[in-house]
Amino acid sequence: MRLTPALAAALMTLAAGSAAKADEGMWTFDNFPIARANQALGTNIDQAWLDRVRLSSVKFGGCSAGIVSGEGLVMTNNHCVATCVANLSTQAINYAETGFTPRRREDEVKCPGDSAEILTEITDVTERMHKAGEGLTGAAFTQARNAEAGRIETEACGGAADRRCQVVSLYRGGQFKLYTYKKYTDVRLAYAPEDRAATFGGDLDNFSFPRFAIDAAFIRLYENGQPAATPTHFKWNAAKPVEGTPVFVSGSPGATQRLLTQDQLMTVRDVVLPMDQLIASELRGRLIRYSEESERHAFEAMDPIVGLENTYKRGLGRMRALTDPAFMAMKAQQEADFRGRLQQASSTGDPFADLTAVQPALRELYAPYALLEGGTGIGTTQVAGGSQLFLWARTLVRGAQERAKPSTERLPEYADSRLAAVQAGLFAERPVYPDLEQVRMEWWLSKTREWLTVDNAAVRGLLGQESPEGLSARLVEGTKLADPAVRRALWEGGLAAVEASDDPMIQYLLSIQDETRAVRSDWETRVQAPTDQASERLATLRFQVYGDAVYPDATGTLRLTYGKIEGSDVPGQRFAPFTTFAGLWDRATGAAPFDVAPKLLAARERIPADTVLDMTVSSDTIGGSSGSPVVNAAGEIVGANFDSTVLTQRNAYGYDRNVNRSVIVTTGAVTAALRDVYGMQRLVDELGAE
Amino acid sequence: MRLTPALAAALMTLAAGSAAKADEGMWTFDNFPIARANQALGTNIDQAWLDRVRLSSVKFGGCSAGIVSGEGLVMTNNHCVATCVANLSTQAINYAETGFTPRRREDEVKCPGDSAEILTEITDVTERMHKAGEGLTGAAFTQARNAEAGRIETEACGGAADRRCQVVSLYRGGQFKLYTYKKYTDVRLAYAPEDRAATFGGDLDNFSFPRFAIDAAFIRLYENGQPAATPTHFKWNAAKPVEGTPVFVSGSPGATQRLLTQDQLMTVRDVVLPMDQLIASELRGRLIRYSEESERHAFEAMDPIVGLENTYKRGLGRMRALTDPAFMAMKAQQEADFRGRLQQASSTGDPFADLTAVQPALRELYAPYALLEGGTGIGTTQVAGGSQLFLWARTLVRGAQERAKPSTERLPEYADSRLAAVQAGLFAERPVYPDLEQVRMEWWLSKTREWLTVDNAAVRGLLGQESPEGLSARLVEGTKLADPAVRRALWEGGLAAVEASDDPMIQYLLSIQDETRAVRSDWETRVQAPTDQASERLATLRFQVYGDAVYPDATGTLRLTYGKIEGSDVPGQRFAPFTTFAGLWDRATGAAPFDVAPKLLAARERIPADTVLDMTVSSDTIGGSSGSPVVNAAGEIVGANFDSTVLTQRNAYGYDRNVNRSVIVTTGAVTAALRDVYGMQRLVDELGAE
Repeated sequence: MRLTPALAAALMTLAAGSAAKADEGMWTFDNFPIARANQALGTNIDQAWLDRVRLSSVKFGGCSAGIVSGEGLVMTNNHCVATCVANLSTQAINYAETGFTPRRREDEVKCPGDSAEILTEITDVTERMHKAGEGLTGAAFTQARNAEAGRIETEACGGAADRRCQVVSLYRGGQFKLYTYKKYTDVRLAYAPEDRAATFGGDLDNFSFPRFAIDAAFIRLYENGQPAATPTHFKWNAAKPVEGTPVFVSGSPGATQRLLTQDQLMTVRDVVLPMDQLIASELRGRLIRYSEESERHAFEAMDPIVGLENTYKRGLGRMRALTDPAFMAMKAQQEADFRGRLQQASSTGDPFADLTAVQPALRELYAPYALLEGGTGIGTTQVAGGSQLFLWARTLVRGAQERAKPSTERLPEYADSRLAAVQAGLFAERPVYPDLEQVRMEWWLSKTREWLTVDNAAVRGLLGQESPEGLSARLVEGTKLADPAVRRALWEGGLAAVEASDDPMIQYLLSIQDETRAVRSDWETRVQAPTDQASERLATLRFQVYGDAVYPDATGTLRLTYGKIEGSDVPGQRFAPFTTFAGLWDRATGAAPFDVAPKLLAARERIPADTVLDMTVSSDTIGGSSGSPVVNAAGEIVGANFDSTVLTQRNAYGYDRNVNRSVIVTTGAVTAALRDVYGMQRLVDELGAE
Repeated sequence: MRLTPALAAALMTLAAGSAAKADEGMWTFDNFPIARANQALGTNIDQAWLDRVRLSSVKFGGCSAGIVSGEGLVMTNNHCVATCVANLSTQAINYAETGFTPRRREDEVKCPGDSAEILTEITDVTERMHKAGEGLTGAAFTQARNAEAGRIETEACGGAADRRCQVVSLYRGGQFKLYTYKKYTDVRLAYAPEDRAATFGGDLDNFSFPRFAIDAAFIRLYENGQPAATPTHFKWNAAKPVEGTPVFVSGSPGATQRLLTQDQLMTVRDVVLPMDQLIASELRGRLIRYSEESERHAFEAMDPIVGLENTYKRGLGRMRALTDPAFMAMKAQQEADFRGRLQQASSTGDPFADLTAVQPALRELYAPYALLEGGTGIGTTQVAGGSQLFLWARTLVRGAQERAKPSTERLPEYADSRLAAVQAGLFAERPVYPDLEQVRMEWWLSKTREWLTVDNAAVRGLLGQESPEGLSARLVEGTKLADPAVRRALWEGGLAAVEASDDPMIQYLLSIQDETRAVRSDWETRVQAPTDQASERLATLRFQVYGDAVYPDATGTLRLTYGKIEGSDVPGQRFAPFTTFAGLWDRATGAAPFDVAPKLLAARERIPADTVLDMTVSSDTIGGSSGSPVVNAAGEIVGANFDSTVLTQRNAYGYDRNVNRSVIVTTGAVTAALRDVYGMQRLVDELGAE
């Protein structure tokens, strides 16, 4: 990369080095830089404040949320309950169209398969985990580590139904922590607005600002059939927000890759994102056309399309980051700083070189692993199987095969400590739409054949003499797995029941285990294990150089970030920090997705036009932060994070204070929606809102 | 880019520098390296041989072809006549299914809108063209050059209906040549096999080898309603081919970009190909689903899908080239060699730096220009409008507006010398499928809105308050432009007729001229003109350094390349040079696209199983070379080029002798198909085949 004057100037504005800069960092609650944050923001938070915020924060599936009353009421984003809303809806009674606005608390309805968790304890288990892998390499290393994590989790949580224990890898293996959660498996939908009120502007306005979306919904935690008592919760503050106010965002950001080396980033740029985005784009085309075929197809495909478009647009932002000369120069500069300091530090071997050496295998194995197994952790799209029926069948087949072994020898997702979550997903009562399942499975089979080539042995195993069209139709038409009772019976029947099943989807999954397990094993041996080992050594070196002034990559666990309410003034992204309802009425054209939701439109005169609707903050967030409570220095909730701008998507790889802006729906807008639009005064009262 | 040992080794096998290596080069017929080719191949060709080959070679739309009898019979690829076949077919009489096998010459049918050309003369006009642009920059430079080209063309060809004159820019403006063609506007389809015989393996086998496709068809040139007399033609040689035989490929390769600098290539890698491929992938998804909706939709979408998948897969090959560390190191090495030698050569200014300075504008303007105008010359997808009806309307509106000006002041595609071709396309009788048009136009509008953003001024102009779905439906349903008589009347009525038209598609095109012309003007001023000027200076320097040992980038004009019949032995691409009919029977599964065409299958016993079907040669080809006659040292035709491997797609940016393999259907296979499958003995006799 050549250093042009413009580029050099851009670099001047970015501090060199890998130590976190002002407002940077998705910090763990046990290593939050209290003094630095207070100094940067002029606040005065302390450990007690941190504890209260942590215990008021909720992990809700792939989203975040905050407790806002003493009776288990929790605010998250509407898009975080969209799948629940879809599952509770039919074409005739479609809550996405009408909103879900139960008059009485007793009318709140359970979200199928959903659960919520509060982080109660963090314990360091680094030494035990490192010891478990000592002297091992490849598959043996991975297996030993997984087994030790399973042991730790089982020892700590046993079979407790209301707790979950998870060994979390931080700093890419530099630290391991045991996270213990209080778990709620009865989560009910308490309120959702009309979908369009939350998604005004649709995919076009997604990842942008100014924004006019009331993307907030409420769930309620239940215990023993009663609303959970939640004495620790956020106080509701719906006052008009003020530019420059310090804020904290508490949530569970999904995954960042900020510690990747230059060579690892280039693999993501050259191999990972292009494949993921291209096949996602084709699925998007198939689903868009599908949804145009009939009212029923439109209803079925709505939630999948929204999710897909969100993932795809985020991926576009990442592609742009990795091809932005100034941003990549910043990353190169950080690596150079680290390497420069390393020369003074003691070390054995060269983990940078080890990671470079892994890249050819990663480039070769990414497509087969992503397509046949999914869950690579570095891509944007989960594709294996394409369909829910396929995934259930895989869980049944593999679950049966794995449970026949001791817990420590299983694939880690079937360790004893994980089975409760597996079963919850498997037994949930969710609608299945066969046409849609078939479209998705056909897409998956055809893209797998295309990317791995028709002569690939695994592809021959997947398809035999059948076509993607014919095979997917046969399996989806023939399977009975849409019935949760059938799934439960097969799960409980174990390996014998699964092997005796004449369900074609089960038979199919049984028939492809050799191919898919081989691909996974190859990936773990040649990519995952050497990457993990070199990354750990790099993390150790990073501690030596920077101390604890660095924070770990996001891993879907609870983090706290800090910043201020502010707009943006960089090229391609200039805006003031607030939007109002007046702006919403202005932007509406009447044509989707710029049509105002009917009930919201009808309430226009009741809402003061200058009520702040959405705002932006500089805090460091990423996908998974959706629904995160945004908290002021007094620990009061002032909004819920629901998005960030497209330029912010670079924060998967690095934080850039100049462009990083998270998008927040304000408590003021939520209060107006509840009170003035949806007749939810009972919730307004419960919140203690003015 | 770091130079690893493996990479350094790869470089060692590639000669340094920009001078052409053995077998490299798409040479013009007036600068073919006769001596070097004879030496490399052990052949003895001369100028008379070159002249005969040139006059036996045909440019056929975007394809190439070769004359194979004295009565105007011409062989090209079946995929080059696929659109003609689709245009002549209905759902009831579908020649793609049955093959087109007229028993008598009188039953050969005109291909609507098609024409064919033979290059008769090449004249140097460099001095005139350079002089026309002297002292000018930006739009004035582009305009003056275009005007001069138009003048030269008109002076040379006047209004002659049977000739076409074209000023061709070679070496990115380093030379300008006037190409004069003998033109045939009555081209009839003489034979096409069942589509599946030509496309066995479909998109999955496309761009690969081993291959089992008889991708050949015949057209016939007509003059004055009679078969054209073509005394100069290739002799048909259907003998079994022999590995190592020297061959020449004579055709019109479409476009290479081998003279692009490193910075230009990175723009293609980072901006151009990602956008083109992503939106193509979505269209592919929409069309695949569309084709699954009904038999009629399947019929309508077949030809568009094949074309789209071909373009998309080629783009994938290019993305892989630009992200292949070894290949990019070769390109970097070539540029370094050139720069090194330049330091000794005299020069003014630094054209490398000038091209670097253009890249930010190119990165900014690529999306609007590609989406709103199309034809950037560096991307893979032509998207503007999405639909044929839109493009006809644009031709009518712009044609009327431009013809109101003197020829030299018009957009160059409407200069007097180009109008005959414009009219031929516009008046052609081709079927239009409204559902398909609507899908394509909706896709185009929605992708344009997405990539340029909803708040972009041009997008607001395109859509007003309408949605892509609503607008495209309104325009396609309302327009009468599917009727060629309507198009002819509007064209002949000129600007008054166009402006008075109440056709919604015409009105729409009138309404968006300001936006689209502004985008084009911006592109020409900020990207095209400075790129052209710097590229010309670079070309001049290249001549100073390397003399005429360099060849110009492909530009869709006639070229000759040379090489040998040989297989390949590099990782990811290992194969012997020949396939046989026995291999076809082996590979067939019965499921599309691996189903043997019915008539071909029925003839299985009549064709000796060891008959060579396809073969590979090392010659330097690219898209547009499809249908190129493959000629032996005696000037006899031995096959038709129809494809190249996916690894070969890097040859858009550079020739790599190790991996470059073109895929050829042999004259032996074509003879077998004509004689043993399709009962076309009359053509076998005309060819003088054994």
